[in-house]
Amino acid sequence: MTDKNRIPYKIYLEENEMPQSWYNVRADMANKPAPLLNPGTGQPLKAEELTPIFCEELVQQELDNENAYIPIPQEIRDFYRMYRPSPLVRAYCLEEKLQTPAKIYYKFEGNNTSGSHKLNSAIAQAYYAKKQGLRGVTTETGAGQWGTALSMACSYFDLDCKVYMVKVSYEQKPFRREVMRTYGASVTPSPSDTTEVGRAILKEHPGTTGSLGCAISEAVEAATKNEGYRYVLGSVLNQVLLHQSVIGLETKAALDKYGIKADMIIGCAGGGSNLGGLISPFMGEKLRGEADYQIIAVEPSSCPSFTRGTYAYDFCDTGMICPLAKMYTLGSSFIPAPNHAGGLRYHGMSPILSQLYDDGLMEARSVRQTDVFQAAETFARVEGILPAPESSHAIRAAIDEAMKCKETGEEKTIVFGLTGTGYFDMTAYEKFHNGEMENYVPSDDEIAASLARLPRLN
Amino acid sequence: MTDKNRIPYKIYLEENEMPQSWYNVRADMANKPAPLLNPGTGQPLKAEELTPIFCEELVQQELDNENAYIPIPQEIRDFYRMYRPSPLVRAYCLEEKLQTPAKIYYKFEGNNTSGSHKLNSAIAQAYYAKKQGLRGVTTETGAGQWGTALSMACSYFDLDCKVYMVKVSYEQKPFRREVMRTYGASVTPSPSDTTEVGRAILKEHPGTTGSLGCAISEAVEAATKNEGYRYVLGSVLNQVLLHQSVIGLETKAALDKYGIKADMIIGCAGGGSNLGGLISPFMGEKLRGEADYQIIAVEPSSCPSFTRGTYAYDFCDTGMICPLAKMYTLGSSFIPAPNHAGGLRYHGMSPILSQLYDDGLMEARSVRQTDVFQAAETFARVEGILPAPESSHAIRAAIDEAMKCKETGEEKTIVFGLTGTGYFDMTAYEKFHNGEMENYVPSDDEIAASLARLPRLN
Repeated sequence: MTDKNRIPYKIYLEENEMPQSWYNVRADMANKPAPLLNPGTGQPLKAEELTPIFCEELVQQELDNENAYIPIPQEIRDFYRMYRPSPLVRAYCLEEKLQTPAKIYYKFEGNNTSGSHKLNSAIAQAYYAKKQGLRGVTTETGAGQWGTALSMACSYFDLDCKVYMVKVSYEQKPFRREVMRTYGASVTPSPSDTTEVGRAILKEHPGTTGSLGCAISEAVEAATKNEGYRYVLGSVLNQVLLHQSVIGLETKAALDKYGIKADMIIGCAGGGSNLGGLISPFMGEKLRGEADYQIIAVEPSSCPSFTRGTYAYDFCDTGMICPLAKMYTLGSSFIPAPNHAGGLRYHGMSPILSQLYDDGLMEARSVRQTDVFQAAETFARVEGILPAPESSHAIRAAIDEAMKCKETGEEKTIVFGLTGTGYFDMTAYEKFHNGEMENYVPSDDEIAASLARLPRLN
Repeated sequence: MTDKNRIPYKIYLEENEMPQSWYNVRADMANKPAPLLNPGTGQPLKAEELTPIFCEELVQQELDNENAYIPIPQEIRDFYRMYRPSPLVRAYCLEEKLQTPAKIYYKFEGNNTSGSHKLNSAIAQAYYAKKQGLRGVTTETGAGQWGTALSMACSYFDLDCKVYMVKVSYEQKPFRREVMRTYGASVTPSPSDTTEVGRAILKEHPGTTGSLGCAISEAVEAATKNEGYRYVLGSVLNQVLLHQSVIGLETKAALDKYGIKADMIIGCAGGGSNLGGLISPFMGEKLRGEADYQIIAVEPSSCPSFTRGTYAYDFCDTGMICPLAKMYTLGSSFIPAPNHAGGLRYHGMSPILSQLYDDGLMEARSVRQTDVFQAAETFARVEGILPAPESSHAIRAAIDEAMKCKETGEEKTIVFGLTGTGYFDMTAYEKFHNGEMENYVPSDDEIAASLARLPRLN
């Protein structure tokens, strides 16, 4: 630890060094992400088709492939200042534990009560809803990270927040539910009798414990049938990656402040919100030919949309009511195994990241659950932070790369995204400690069966 | 929010601005805290009587009433850098919500995986155990904050950590238990059959769910009967307040950096570790006549040792095996009602704070549980952070003081300690949300009965 006195353990930006605009990587992409399609007509969706469901200004952001920088409104920057900048941490202790010549940094986004990076987009979406004069927003949540973040954001802007929480999570994760209630959100177990779609599902399957697809359907119905409400979503969409670019911009500014050049950027990937945000300014440099970086998406081997999916138009939701997006997908009928990284259990991938991956601008790999928890425990013991299972996918890959450096002697600089904390995931850690954790890997047949059901217009 | 651009939301110290020594307030006290007594002889305990139980260097710190500054060893400062400095936050949003002219700051100690300030002393105690060449340490834990912090600290120094966890908590709080296991600690539900005292208790009360007193007894036995182990404790002791002075020193340095003069320092008080640490440099100035501050200890009305106890020698533990300490106490046989601020359910109070309170150098007040949770929810909704129930006692008093300023128009600067986060306390929040939370206030008779059983030597 010879240079410990040069680079601090944690690099914090001053308030005046913080990003004042989000960065829209689409502006620098030669091949733009494919447009969303209307599932009925198969035609690209127009703004006026989206505004009944989404906030107006967010629809503009969703469709904007041209403007590279979009100013962050002052009200959002005020909120960001409550928990941002997040620290960029030099993992000195992990480096020492691994005895690697690699230099490892992580951007820690778990430093706020929602426990993850989701708050970066939640506050933006809540702001635009407020600005539009809406009464509230609706959303769905599974494990509860997005619902928690949105509850906090709505509480700040005094907006009503209706969260449809998958019933099995509602019952099994009462703590997340109570955090949302603390912030004033109404949390309804889905399916519920508060919506037509919910009542229909309950009638057909009285004992169902719900699904994310069903919760989305209820949230969308609640948004469209209640005056003054819109629906909001925490991942996949272009607008979400735009908001999350604050992660990458801060990371880049912190590295630049100390003259550090990253060789490799690593992030976990479910719908792509964290990874897309983290890499965006680095990818921008790469797209503009100013610098090169190795960029790695890490996904669970149980839900390998990049590594074993196909690039095609598909439904964003299992209920097949949302628009069609062109993305790497396992098929919207693919049911991921019940692994413990709820935030990565998504059949598809952000259209922006899918296009970048298809263009060979980034790599992807999948990792097994027990290997992920092994990395999580190693990390926790030396770096102190108890990581979320999702984030630990990135830790696994970062450790693997650092060990390669140990073999080759290369002093690579590795930056990874630590998206959140695992305080609400201790049941998974308990399974791991007790040797009861399984590794699920879907069979080729299983994936083929799901892909065979992709919508026909491809 | 006119001056928002002058004072940042969060004041972080640079690494070179961080404290290099702890501050020992005893050095500046005219009336020193009363010495610990041997319960058998009634005589002040000598170092050689303490070293079979406690680490040698910690015993020196425990007995040191003379040295004002004790250097923080480099190894501990390295660890502190992983999560310190903790932010001093200007509560702009809370001020706006309350429409108060008061300026409110809080020192947030929940910014590490243990979720509380306990880590500041845990890492110090683990360091001295390692330096002494010990194999490990033993301790007890109730709700689990101290046990978690100690597990993290022992993991860092590769020390064995044996935690005796009150059986009812072990069963009701499996998440805390799993966090400890993640850091490699062994966690034993107490009473257990691993100690003589545990076996005796189990034989007499086969169905018991344990108590903190019993867990202490087991931890002390395990320390003395296992070669290479010592017992460590997370509050009350002088050494603990010494280590926790890092909170106050950072707070003072951050305020000084921006030329801010505090009028009032507020902290919650159970055994006194957080409050004692937070106030120490301010109290030092007060004792030396350099400045004046209003200092307020806030305790639960269900366990009011300062406000309704008496200043006398008493046992530190309910099992009556530990030394006698002179302190404000409700009597070691006092059983606090099952409120939700486990960290404040202690019958006594730090001897240092007890002497300062008795000398009129600080105030105390007690607050009701439902009022505490009301303050917690208000705070969470505007400041984002979900506070621990313990910490929320200080929030309650800070809000009350800010509202007084609103009445009088005074622009007081209020600083309070936000000791931790409430992620593992959502059962309590749920009770509060559902209107099922009760307020317990012991009767005069109950307190008198307990005080009647104080040891006779007073």
